[in-house]
Amino acid sequence: MPSSHRYPDTDRAALYRAIAERRDMRHFLPGQTVAPELLQRLLQAAHWGPSVGFMQPWRFVRITRPALREQLHACVERERQQTAQALGERQAEFLRLKVEGIRECAELLAVCLADGRERHVFGRRTMPYMDVASVGCALQNLWLAARAEGLGVGWVSVFEPAEVAALLQLPEGASPLALLCIGPVAAFYDEPMLQQQRWASRAPLADVVFDDAWGGAANWLTGDTY
Amino acid sequence: MPSSHRYPDTDRAALYRAIAERRDMRHFLPGQTVAPELLQRLLQAAHWGPSVGFMQPWRFVRITRPALREQLHACVERERQQTAQALGERQAEFLRLKVEGIRECAELLAVCLADGRERHVFGRRTMPYMDVASVGCALQNLWLAARAEGLGVGWVSVFEPAEVAALLQLPEGASPLALLCIGPVAAFYDEPMLQQQRWASRAPLADVVFDDAWGGAANWLTGDTY
Repeated sequence: MPSSHRYPDTDRAALYRAIAERRDMRHFLPGQTVAPELLQRLLQAAHWGPSVGFMQPWRFVRITRPALREQLHACVERERQQTAQALGERQAEFLRLKVEGIRECAELLAVCLADGRERHVFGRRTMPYMDVASVGCALQNLWLAARAEGLGVGWVSVFEPAEVAALLQLPEGASPLALLCIGPVAAFYDEPMLQQQRWASRAPLADVVFDDAWGGAANWLTGDTY
Repeated sequence: MPSSHRYPDTDRAALYRAIAERRDMRHFLPGQTVAPELLQRLLQAAHWGPSVGFMQPWRFVRITRPALREQLHACVERERQQTAQALGERQAEFLRLKVEGIRECAELLAVCLADGRERHVFGRRTMPYMDVASVGCALQNLWLAARAEGLGVGWVSVFEPAEVAALLQLPEGASPLALLCIGPVAAFYDEPMLQQQRWASRAPLADVVFDDAWGGAANWLTGDTY
């Protein structure tokens, strides 16, 4: 088996370190900035992500006006209340969580799906939502790159997309998918914040891997891996 | 601004290298294997991806039976023909593309959305498809880790999900999102294969970044970045 494409051990370790240490951050240091060239490097990382049929469905709107940031925060707060009501018995627990760092983070981006996506049939004729999957891939590049640069990133999806679309003057057919908080943090959570806060916990790997059919035991897995 | 969270230069470079060199592979070396511990490491990388509300919606079905692999290949071939017909004037061009390496790749995984997702409201009450985005994030971890390990990965979404679900005996509510080809390759494409084959090209970064509203010029970007 050719091994020439494998990275040196220290380089592979760096990638796995970023994967393990990346967190969905909600606690940002206020009053900070991100150098434009660094922000551009992170956007480049996202833009080099894969996309179904190479359609590149992502559009990034950088929020620079304080009033617009406040309006977006208000959108999120409205949906936070709606989500709480929909959660039934977990309502109070949910309301105690900090679900966003929109007011404090150095940079705020709205990540949107572009308009005119219907013509992109390659790889999404039967699954139009593959464009959403592609944006997930792209943002993971940005998320990991940010961690390596020492910056926190938080993906906020607690909003009504139509409200955010109106604020950003999106064309018909375009749709917001993420409010992305980016910026310096005091510290990264040792484990996912939602696990720290006991909202949920990481499942054992063996719970999510099957052989050949749903529920088929993957006996080749070793150890207690999470 | 605290810089202590930033990785050493060589480690950051390694991450950006993986981001830049990762490709959607369709050409795999036949007759190869992937050591189980390596496959597990890749799945772990995916499993450490972010997920909306920490819901961890991904399930991985490893395909070990040759007959099942052939059936899945047949699904993809059927949809490849359907997609071609839907493409109109680009039909012939599309049919010349190699869109999958299912028969040759060392390992084949079906990545599915789990059943019972409707109860996960946190972060997806207004956007249920955030679970799809999460799977994209998880698979990007796997994709980058595989590149660092010297392995190619290709995401195939050219299939009718109901057909694949039946073959894998997925429960009601679960849904396949990807057929993932993983394995050694002779070489990684110098640029995305679809760009090499002139299907599409990478847009300039300035085309996908706006300030404050759709279409607002992001004048802070520098250089001709792609």
